[in-house]
Amino acid sequence: MSRHYLDWNATTPLRPEVKAAMVEAMEIAGNPSSVHSEGRAAKMLLERSREALATALGAEGADVIFTSGTTEAAAMVLPGRGIHCAPAEHSAIKVWCEQDLAVDQDGIISVPDPGRATLQLANNETGVMQDLPQGLGSSDLTQAFGKVPFAFNWLGVTAGFVSAHKLGGPKGIGALILKKGTEIEALIRGGGQEQGRRAGTENLIGIAGFAAAATAAQRELEDGTWERVAELRDGLEARILAASPGAMIAGKGARRLPNTTCVLTSGWKGETQVMQMDLAGFAISAGSACSSGKVRASGVLQAMGYSDSDAASAIRVSLGPATTADEVNRFANAWESAYSRWRDRHG
Amino acid sequence: MSRHYLDWNATTPLRPEVKAAMVEAMEIAGNPSSVHSEGRAAKMLLERSREALATALGAEGADVIFTSGTTEAAAMVLPGRGIHCAPAEHSAIKVWCEQDLAVDQDGIISVPDPGRATLQLANNETGVMQDLPQGLGSSDLTQAFGKVPFAFNWLGVTAGFVSAHKLGGPKGIGALILKKGTEIEALIRGGGQEQGRRAGTENLIGIAGFAAAATAAQRELEDGTWERVAELRDGLEARILAASPGAMIAGKGARRLPNTTCVLTSGWKGETQVMQMDLAGFAISAGSACSSGKVRASGVLQAMGYSDSDAASAIRVSLGPATTADEVNRFANAWESAYSRWRDRHG
Repeated sequence: MSRHYLDWNATTPLRPEVKAAMVEAMEIAGNPSSVHSEGRAAKMLLERSREALATALGAEGADVIFTSGTTEAAAMVLPGRGIHCAPAEHSAIKVWCEQDLAVDQDGIISVPDPGRATLQLANNETGVMQDLPQGLGSSDLTQAFGKVPFAFNWLGVTAGFVSAHKLGGPKGIGALILKKGTEIEALIRGGGQEQGRRAGTENLIGIAGFAAAATAAQRELEDGTWERVAELRDGLEARILAASPGAMIAGKGARRLPNTTCVLTSGWKGETQVMQMDLAGFAISAGSACSSGKVRASGVLQAMGYSDSDAASAIRVSLGPATTADEVNRFANAWESAYSRWRDRHG
Repeated sequence: MSRHYLDWNATTPLRPEVKAAMVEAMEIAGNPSSVHSEGRAAKMLLERSREALATALGAEGADVIFTSGTTEAAAMVLPGRGIHCAPAEHSAIKVWCEQDLAVDQDGIISVPDPGRATLQLANNETGVMQDLPQGLGSSDLTQAFGKVPFAFNWLGVTAGFVSAHKLGGPKGIGALILKKGTEIEALIRGGGQEQGRRAGTENLIGIAGFAAAATAAQRELEDGTWERVAELRDGLEARILAASPGAMIAGKGARRLPNTTCVLTSGWKGETQVMQMDLAGFAISAGSACSSGKVRASGVLQAMGYSDSDAASAIRVSLGPATTADEVNRFANAWESAYSRWRDRHG
């Protein structure tokens, strides 16, 4: 049976350019910390990748520190500082913060004291985007990076977190972006790598893949790809709402990522839908993927004022640059037919 | 000019099996935390890799937690516990410990209170191996893994640290091995991955490469590869000592890794030798590679009683399974000729 991957916010397939860059990096034998020729070649690839990532992020002149991903980057700057956030943040952020920032019904978050707050640029479950206030302490840029244009240097934020695998790069590599001159204490110590801020031999193959992904994603932001994706997403939402007039699209009133839709069908469990769609050949999700197979009611949707039972009915469909109209059409057909069967049993 | 890589303790070229496993893993699109078919395929690769690593380590039944390498693994268990170590440990270990364990002239370390100590199985600079006392808190297994046979479950140690890139795997992936049931507090939080002990989407391609490297290295331990490497190393040492009767081999009186030699030629700076050998086509090192291009006098050699000036003359030559007799012969020729020139100027 043919498979259709519509869970790009969980993780993305590798881009062809990324595979090529990683395979090429496999030939570099040296350790970037070694002074001999092989070491210098590795160091050159590392620094070239760092520059490419900074360029794609609009973070020229900022410090780019490679980490194993956003989760590690957040753990490097958030703990022990009394940082405030909304319950709509990803769990990798929330775990270190006071979760007391208010979220309105469209998913928009109020930030009274930006310097002591962290605020995501886009939500992973709903796609809702925030206007970042000037002087913001930090921002989880993970879901926005590569899907909407922004420049780190114009965001007015001190620290940003990104992961490669949300934009066609490999899993397990990401970065902490710091406004030049920001001091942090290293979490992982015992080596001079990454200016002494993150010790340990660098994941060079992953870093080369991240740079290639960021560069390709940046190019794609200018060629109309995401306008096409947004049309597919809007068409999907129109079909869902036509088939199921009681369905709700979380955050539809807000500015959102072009690829994400979060559909609530009160009474029809999201988990059940995910399983039915999986059997029909479609990968979608119910909330964030990041809790090891466990599906919990979404903190995001509850913060937006949805009841527990409405929140439990949510599915997230997230499209990517490679998603076709045919795939979205097939998905809409499959969902509508599953919905009809459910409604006939429960209606 | 042909290049000869003799710095395998700094990092190793990727094994062909590792490249193949990584390229294969590139085709797996899912997030191991997703419940759909693509997610389950990723999860299966993750768990199969974990089992393969446990088998290669003789750690069946122990907890294998994937990290970005030994440096991160050490940072997960050593800080804040008053752990003692020798100054001969790698800086990723030392940074968290009281460095007060005695080292004798052969590099052997005394461990009066094993439960509150960490002790490397093999030294990265000299190759000197330690007998681990029963009840040892933790051990840096990085340099020993894949070069000498051992089973984690027989070492009597609570925690072990390993990195893939020392045995033909990729840089930036490693593991913390814990005796079953050992509790630790996660350093990187906010996700259920790795039993909640190391949050963040897993470096799946790196993990697949690590498993392939460990499996290949395990096989190699039984096929005579390292006996051949030890003969090459011993032959190299014999030539060096014949050409330069004043040269010293650090740790020669102790049991050592089969591939490592650390040569001191009093008065001839190690850094200079590394540069001269690099120009002649050979990658070797002066001490550990792990301090971002900076070459410092070795804490290991000073702890063994060598003077600062003797220690500053050290070079490390570390061979690998792919090293040939011809390469070692060429290196010995090049080193002897550089040594003659140096002696003529300074003798």
